[in-house]
Amino acid sequence: MYEYTEVAPFKYALSIDNHEEIVSALLAFCKDNEIYAGSVSGIGAVSEATFRFLDPVTLKYVDRTFTEQMEITNLIGNISIKDGEPYLHIHITASRSDYSCIGGHLLSARINGACELIVEDFFDGFIGRETDPETGINLFKF
Amino acid sequence: MYEYTEVAPFKYALSIDNHEEIVSALLAFCKDNEIYAGSVSGIGAVSEATFRFLDPVTLKYVDRTFTEQMEITNLIGNISIKDGEPYLHIHITASRSDYSCIGGHLLSARINGACELIVEDFFDGFIGRETDPETGINLFKF
Amino acid sequence: MYEYTEVAPFKYALSIDNHEEIVSALLAFCKDNEIYAGSVSGIGAVSEATFRFLDPVTLKYVDRTFTEQMEITNLIGNISIKDGEPYLHIHITASRSDYSCIGGHLLSARINGACELIVEDFFDGFIGRETDPETGINLFKF
Repeated sequence: MYEYTEVAPFKYALSIDNHEEIVSALLAFCKDNEIYAGSVSGIGAVSEATFRFLDPVTLKYVDRTFTEQMEITNLIGNISIKDGEPYLHIHITASRSDYSCIGGHLLSARINGACELIVEDFFDGFIGRETDPETGINLFKF
Repeated sequence: MYEYTEVAPFKYALSIDNHEEIVSALLAFCKDNEIYAGSVSGIGAVSEATFRFLDPVTLKYVDRTFTEQMEITNLIGNISIKDGEPYLHIHITASRSDYSCIGGHLLSARINGACELIVEDFFDGFIGRETDPETGINLFKF
Repeated sequence: MYEYTEVAPFKYALSIDNHEEIVSALLAFCKDNEIYAGSVSGIGAVSEATFRFLDPVTLKYVDRTFTEQMEITNLIGNISIKDGEPYLHIHITASRSDYSCIGGHLLSARINGACELIVEDFFDGFIGRETDPETGINLFKF
């Protein structure tokens, strides 16, 4: 599912295998390595990605899947803890075959090519999550 | 205005409160914590953002405000010192309700949802600023 | 070609001179400082950029050059070692004069304004490269 190496103390270079789904593979990496607070950033290429947009009027989520080859021009996010498990919050920007960019809150993405991430484990830090009653969003809770 | 926790020595997870303006809140965070050199990256959602484009022919700034719900697919920038105060240089990429991306040099943005940043304080480093006579841009000065 | 300062142990703030080409200047910086594993991120402005898209059907590269003023809303990538030399893998997102974003795998870009990067040297880490026989892509090899 993935290969990794510790490039500095509590910092990892992570290569997720081709054709894997990024969010679930990254979550597995965090669980396997007991990372409950951290950051992630990286690049890659995907054949499919599903983004979530929060409609500010209805407060309902609008999800859309793009099935086409795209370069991830940026994947960035954080790792926190919710209900005793690692919790990911990831956004991505992706470029299409015409080089125009789309993106958003990442629900899932299928790798087609490579996915190279740097993950930092804030092993001494605590980043919890708490649901905001106003918006229903899971906010940072320190 | 914001909540934060030190996740590693001189590294902070920062959550800016909903409906705050990002640049001024981040600047307040830097002043409050005496951060004069550093980096920042993160994600969030905004209801309004103003970008600045430098016209290369006229060397005049063209600012434009987008008033709509957007996900910040990436906020990245650096913290330096100018005239004895923290100085921010921030760029963002944002995705609209149709998932297409816009962005640029960030002047201001109003949070609508959340804004989760990682700030690193280069407490031993010095990053100054000096105005370039050719372009009028405030460049890094070490 | 560039100026830099070490802002923390093995972490550098790097300013590439105006009108330089980013990829070659960054590669020179890595060679000059013997960085064979690391990460890079930053912002800037360019007058020209060439992106590479891998067509997933033909497995052929499609390169396109955009000659216009753009803000780099995000440059991100990693440094590895291939054939004994630093090897860069860089993606960027760029915003045009209408603030819409384009981007992709970066082949080259000409600075017009500034380019401010943070480079981290994973001096104890090893990130190699190996060509994947299926796709021809140079993948991480640990």
